[in-house]
Amino acid sequence: MSEEKKDLLLEIRDGVSALPFHQFLGLKADCYDTKNRSIHFDMRDEFVGNNHFKILHGGLIATILDTEGGFVLVLDGAWRAETGSPTNPVLIKGGTIDLRIDYLRPGKGKHFVATGAILRRGNKVAVVRTELRNELDELIAVGTCTYLVG
Amino acid sequence: MSEEKKDLLLEIRDGVSALPFHQFLGLKADCYDTKNRSIHFDMRDEFVGNNHFKILHGGLIATILDTEGGFVLVLDGAWRAETGSPTNPVLIKGGTIDLRIDYLRPGKGKHFVATGAILRRGNKVAVVRTELRNELDELIAVGTCTYLVG
Amino acid sequence: MSEEKKDLLLEIRDGVSALPFHQFLGLKADCYDTKNRSIHFDMRDEFVGNNHFKILHGGLIATILDTEGGFVLVLDGAWRAETGSPTNPVLIKGGTIDLRIDYLRPGKGKHFVATGAILRRGNKVAVVRTELRNELDELIAVGTCTYLVG
Amino acid sequence: MSEEKKDLLLEIRDGVSALPFHQFLGLKADCYDTKNRSIHFDMRDEFVGNNHFKILHGGLIATILDTEGGFVLVLDGAWRAETGSPTNPVLIKGGTIDLRIDYLRPGKGKHFVATGAILRRGNKVAVVRTELRNELDELIAVGTCTYLVG
Repeated sequence: MSEEKKDLLLEIRDGVSALPFHQFLGLKADCYDTKNRSIHFDMRDEFVGNNHFKILHGGLIATILDTEGGFVLVLDGAWRAETGSPTNPVLIKGGTIDLRIDYLRPGKGKHFVATGAILRRGNKVAVVRTELRNELDELIAVGTCTYLVG
Repeated sequence: MSEEKKDLLLEIRDGVSALPFHQFLGLKADCYDTKNRSIHFDMRDEFVGNNHFKILHGGLIATILDTEGGFVLVLDGAWRAETGSPTNPVLIKGGTIDLRIDYLRPGKGKHFVATGAILRRGNKVAVVRTELRNELDELIAVGTCTYLVG
Repeated sequence: MSEEKKDLLLEIRDGVSALPFHQFLGLKADCYDTKNRSIHFDMRDEFVGNNHFKILHGGLIATILDTEGGFVLVLDGAWRAETGSPTNPVLIKGGTIDLRIDYLRPGKGKHFVATGAILRRGNKVAVVRTELRNELDELIAVGTCTYLVG
Repeated sequence: MSEEKKDLLLEIRDGVSALPFHQFLGLKADCYDTKNRSIHFDMRDEFVGNNHFKILHGGLIATILDTEGGFVLVLDGAWRAETGSPTNPVLIKGGTIDLRIDYLRPGKGKHFVATGAILRRGNKVAVVRTELRNELDELIAVGTCTYLVG
């Protein structure tokens, strides 16, 4: 990877972590290399969506999976682009078309990591599959996220 | 509506507004009567998911629609139950099975209201359709939410 | 409606009914006017997906709802176009991006009608909500269908 | 695998292939062992959903993916059951709650195979992910199918 490319990926990573709603929730983006691109965060009392079970709110799970899907896609776009910047068209103009989340296990844990993989990368539409796991590597939820690109 | 029933609905409403993640986001539940059951909230700088357009984060939209779907369902369960309480099985044991959100317009606005209607109410599974509108009554997003019940 | 426009709508209707898989299943398209655009068909022994209950196969329900969604969209495109023909870009180049079906009641009946309404009509993506009802007007299933357009 | 178990799996396989809609379409179920459980079929002129591109109708793709999801689940149920038969509760009473299909590539090919894996297997609800590939092993579509069980 060229230094220029590496800098671009890190700039995107920081841009994603710095988005207002992500800062509010404490979501952090990470990209060690082109394969490892994740959104992670720590459990907080404010994230509870069910007082009885003390588990993550389902909407927060959807938030993380949508965020990870977009992150994966923007990194991929930057990686493919000859030149580029975080003011990349994908980052600015794209948007989520639809989002589908399957909740597989209660959202219990102290630390959560979302990962994703691109299913489809077209000129107009991209689809990313995402997963949320806790610190025990238990699969909490999966998402399929469709984005408008270009 | 009996006074007892009315009290139950109000107790559920307050229980939903008081959930940690709802308090954190400032989501308010409202139920004027059995037909008007909504989740509403005001725009805040922290809710921005796209710095260029200053629009709601898609995950927040998913959060509100999931919350509204659950709220409609719990009210419906309480309404049907001969007796009941906010420690209703639905409220405690149920959970979202899957959630599908279609983003129709950018989430612009100052105040947002989510409403919903039950599509299916079975013994095991319920499906609720939800909508998010801004203060101009523009339809921002729709959701289809499937819940495990009883 | 101009005569030319009327002819175009009827040509699209016949084109949809004539598609090989639609002929194979006996699906008929109908458009009396711009508001009434449906796909309808009669129950047949071959359509059974559960020998015990003698109900429609879920995949057939998905087929009808997808077909209705595309039909509504192509009619809408033709209606908006100044000029146009069934060799309309929408009809040829578009395609289903994703399809989500909620099964609400067993598919029992003698005659079924699918109807639909456009939720979003963008330059790149359109979303159509569809419904399937039997001859007793019971709601069997609903669909949300996302299409690539233009 | 006991002979009794093997016979049960084969009986389920034959029961699935024999369902009226499956026979009508020529869908064949196969289970060589507990890991290889597929639905496969050959392209036919009647399956075309787009006259210009001569590709599979999207509804047929949904049909195969829904069928595969149910097949995987029934086999799994039979496998886990101490005793059992194709008149298994799952096979008779269960049903698809919802189905979501993502169309990734045009449905071109001569022979198609659907495979699936269980994401969630609860007492009330199960979720299966399915894939459709052509004879070149190209991924045509993926599905997420939610079923009522027990």
